[in-house]
Amino acid sequence: MKMNDITVKPIAYIETDFKEKFGIPRQSGLCDTARGRIVFLPQYRTPDALRGLDGFSHLWLIFDFSLAHRDEWSPTVRPPRLGGNTRVGVFASRSPFRPNPIGLSCVKIENIEYSENDGWVINVLGADLLDNTPILDIKPYIPFSDCRPDARGGYADEKKEHSLDVIIPTEYAELLDDDRLACLRQCLSQDPRPSYQDDGRKYSMLFSDFDVHFTVEGKKLTVTEIEPLK
Amino acid sequence: MKMNDITVKPIAYIETDFKEKFGIPRQSGLCDTARGRIVFLPQYRTPDALRGLDGFSHLWLIFDFSLAHRDEWSPTVRPPRLGGNTRVGVFASRSPFRPNPIGLSCVKIENIEYSENDGWVINVLGADLLDNTPILDIKPYIPFSDCRPDARGGYADEKKEHSLDVIIPTEYAELLDDDRLACLRQCLSQDPRPSYQDDGRKYSMLFSDFDVHFTVEGKKLTVTEIEPLK
Repeated sequence: MKMNDITVKPIAYIETDFKEKFGIPRQSGLCDTARGRIVFLPQYRTPDALRGLDGFSHLWLIFDFSLAHRDEWSPTVRPPRLGGNTRVGVFASRSPFRPNPIGLSCVKIENIEYSENDGWVINVLGADLLDNTPILDIKPYIPFSDCRPDARGGYADEKKEHSLDVIIPTEYAELLDDDRLACLRQCLSQDPRPSYQDDGRKYSMLFSDFDVHFTVEGKKLTVTEIEPLK
Repeated sequence: MKMNDITVKPIAYIETDFKEKFGIPRQSGLCDTARGRIVFLPQYRTPDALRGLDGFSHLWLIFDFSLAHRDEWSPTVRPPRLGGNTRVGVFASRSPFRPNPIGLSCVKIENIEYSENDGWVINVLGADLLDNTPILDIKPYIPFSDCRPDARGGYADEKKEHSLDVIIPTEYAELLDDDRLACLRQCLSQDPRPSYQDDGRKYSMLFSDFDVHFTVEGKKLTVTEIEPLK
């Protein structure tokens, strides 16, 4: 039996508005407005490799959780969805901290377009990935085999995490285009705080070219400043 | 931007009845009776890592297409589903021959049970993997993010490949238990032949502990012998 390690290499990277881990939706599909732009590395940059992809609406990204590389692994993790206090098995979770730091996300194809600098790029929606995440593979989403309407989702079925009312004063809201504003609202409403935190603190989240400051009181999240970076 | 290769290591392997590539259903989900038994490598063999998995009905296997390792990659492949003559982009296909030979399959959890020799193993259904395929990661199927009923499947939506009428004489059918017989029927009905082959040839397919011989005439596949191995 061949049980050898294998070496995998990035074929592309994805550009997103998530410049740091804090604030990224904790579950694929929770932020369907989040834009991503998949840029192939030069040696994989050929339109032939994408032929026929335009017939599909969704695709799978298999990616490197590049900030979650660890020498050790823990058999259990504490999913944010369970309040951060309950441990579940790593193979019953989508945590980045796993024996092989490989992630899996379903995204929607917005379009495939040619760019002078980057060649053919795939624009996607619902990309809950950190900016510049290395992509290891791209596969079409095949409804017949991938869509299982009868599936039970264990603890993840309680998907209704508490959500927050998000208040963004107009002067700050104006700084973002409509799509980004909608995405930021979605992310903030899902409460990016580590759940064991008390209220009253000031938080800051890098998003697109901005540093977004906010506070939370009860069920209300108020953006106190959106500061352009650079 | 960190665009480094990463090394991934098998955490488990899967035992199936598919002893060779020939005859394996070409699409995940096409053979829902195919049994698999996931055995963890000793260093990953702890029930803690599976805690909470019993609440899920399906899981993702990310695996090494260990027989598809190649030094070169081709931007296009010819999916069997398109008759083996039409080329599509490798990223618009689930072909094993891709820049990183990583596979993705959704399987149904049958049960999780303790075995004296192998510790806690996961028995699954719908496992279209070669026997002893190295498993790189196991993730729960999360309906909210993974099930996309609105997805369009491109050329793969024409899932109705031609199917064959399968005739297995009783004397041979009796050699297999009911589950295996059902699985073998499913696999054969999907016509394992390379589609550009003419009829009239004798084929042989290793399945479980048997060598299954068959011929095809028109839409009729006849098993001519099921020969126990060893």
